[in-house]
Amino acid sequence: MVEAPAFLSLLDYLGVAVFAVTGALAASRKQLDIIAFCFFGVAAGVGGGTLRDLLLGTVPVFWIRNPTYVVVAIAVSVAVFFVAHYFYENWSRYRLLLWLDAVGMSAYAVMGASKAHAAGAPFVPAVIMGGMTAAFGGVIRDILAGEPSIIIRREIYITAAMVGAAVHLALLAVQVPFWVSAVTGAVIAFLIRGGALAYGWTLPAYRNPPGRDPDLRR
Amino acid sequence: MVEAPAFLSLLDYLGVAVFAVTGALAASRKQLDIIAFCFFGVAAGVGGGTLRDLLLGTVPVFWIRNPTYVVVAIAVSVAVFFVAHYFYENWSRYRLLLWLDAVGMSAYAVMGASKAHAAGAPFVPAVIMGGMTAAFGGVIRDILAGEPSIIIRREIYITAAMVGAAVHLALLAVQVPFWVSAVTGAVIAFLIRGGALAYGWTLPAYRNPPGRDPDLRR
Amino acid sequence: MVEAPAFLSLLDYLGVAVFAVTGALAASRKQLDIIAFCFFGVAAGVGGGTLRDLLLGTVPVFWIRNPTYVVVAIAVSVAVFFVAHYFYENWSRYRLLLWLDAVGMSAYAVMGASKAHAAGAPFVPAVIMGGMTAAFGGVIRDILAGEPSIIIRREIYITAAMVGAAVHLALLAVQVPFWVSAVTGAVIAFLIRGGALAYGWTLPAYRNPPGRDPDLRR
Repeated sequence: MVEAPAFLSLLDYLGVAVFAVTGALAASRKQLDIIAFCFFGVAAGVGGGTLRDLLLGTVPVFWIRNPTYVVVAIAVSVAVFFVAHYFYENWSRYRLLLWLDAVGMSAYAVMGASKAHAAGAPFVPAVIMGGMTAAFGGVIRDILAGEPSIIIRREIYITAAMVGAAVHLALLAVQVPFWVSAVTGAVIAFLIRGGALAYGWTLPAYRNPPGRDPDLRR
Repeated sequence: MVEAPAFLSLLDYLGVAVFAVTGALAASRKQLDIIAFCFFGVAAGVGGGTLRDLLLGTVPVFWIRNPTYVVVAIAVSVAVFFVAHYFYENWSRYRLLLWLDAVGMSAYAVMGASKAHAAGAPFVPAVIMGGMTAAFGGVIRDILAGEPSIIIRREIYITAAMVGAAVHLALLAVQVPFWVSAVTGAVIAFLIRGGALAYGWTLPAYRNPPGRDPDLRR
Repeated sequence: MVEAPAFLSLLDYLGVAVFAVTGALAASRKQLDIIAFCFFGVAAGVGGGTLRDLLLGTVPVFWIRNPTYVVVAIAVSVAVFFVAHYFYENWSRYRLLLWLDAVGMSAYAVMGASKAHAAGAPFVPAVIMGGMTAAFGGVIRDILAGEPSIIIRREIYITAAMVGAAVHLALLAVQVPFWVSAVTGAVIAFLIRGGALAYGWTLPAYRNPPGRDPDLRR
């Protein structure tokens, strides 16, 4: 059986690596140079975990204490620079980015909630922390690239992260082994987000009252 | 007489709640779903205080230690989702957002300065901290929503926050009771910002020299 | 001989002052008021160092512990407000901003790497920290001003900062005196960035495969 810390580390590396790929893909869409690929990869890869560590006060943040994370993010970004055009020849690069983002989001949501919980956060803030940790790497990537943020797109995103985080914490509370609850939470987050990507799932959106002036500045 | 910590908490909740309303209103202008309302509400509501706690090193940040803040922000955001169109039927939603933002800014300016001062910050950094704490929730809200930031609008904003913060600290320094100085500072900040909103008060702006090439890139 | 801490302080003030000028110049391009000049000046001036202190856990952050930094940034910003149009009469303001940014970037890159190293960070994270510290003030300035970020421009930027940081740490590792290694690192960073500004140096950029649909959303 995998122990909690080792399993968390695995999720951590998974989250860093796939978010780094999405960062590098964003750089490729802007046709930037290899260092910019690495910068986007590192920023997207460690962004969510950095926010989590800052908010919890776990400093120096994780990638300063352990350089492997940054090395992974850089290696992944360099790889994307050289091989990207082979493996998305018949793919939409942006779709690929979104699906990888979904994987990273699922890993980070569970991990963020878990670390917040371990640091003593009550259930609601821990779930919020899961959502923030999951979303923040993508938000940084989108801000750096000057794209509209992934979280204001209509499809379900934060919801998936928070549901996954909540499931993980709830299972832990009823003594389910750590890695079972973590995998369950992450898979549920991924299924919800994946459904949103594949079928365009949305929650009911706020609608302006009928007859309302369409000028949204008002 | 209200004690300082209790009174600060009150200002804290006031700031969180009204900034959460502005975040939810920003989400409603984008016609987002209810979870996005909550995310915008929480981010705008706790953003300024989170920056303050991070800069001062008061971690885990306040809303992780005490979940009530997040619960308040979520409750307010859900309420905005369901009732918003009733109470601004005859109002401009953006004006409402700006006025509520003014209330939150006033509360947060005094609180940010106060906590910085209590943490040992000298006068000037404490006043700056008041300004940053007051502005940051709105800045996050505007970045998430992809709107031009409230602080680069012409009307007086940061000035109001810093004057309120300075008045509060100055009165404290001459032994005025805490809550009197806090209320005075907050009211002054609100009056200045309110005047700016109502009458378009501005400070003299920098003007390009006459004959200068209008191309601002240069 | 100048001692390490004193020399670091000097670099710190240099970085804060020139980044503050670039912040104030950004405010002048937006024709904002004097308080906005100060806000942009302070945010750009202390932004990079603030991120560094947060990531390393050196809190309260430097400008709260020592108000001189903020006072310097404000003084510089006020000066820009009043004298700017004299000294860039025959200059492109944006070019001036870019060159000053290059100076601040060089100072901050060395300093960020140095402080990270002193806090126990291994070589790779310390170099990344140098790059982030160097870039972050400019990123904040550009986000506040709503401009495309300086780091997604084609010319070499982060690379210069990280090379300078790496040189500094490498020289330190072979017992070169602190200030020699710091000056060498900063000068190298500045020369690389200066070359990029003067001659448009770029690294090879990622190119979309031939025949690729030019729609970058895909």
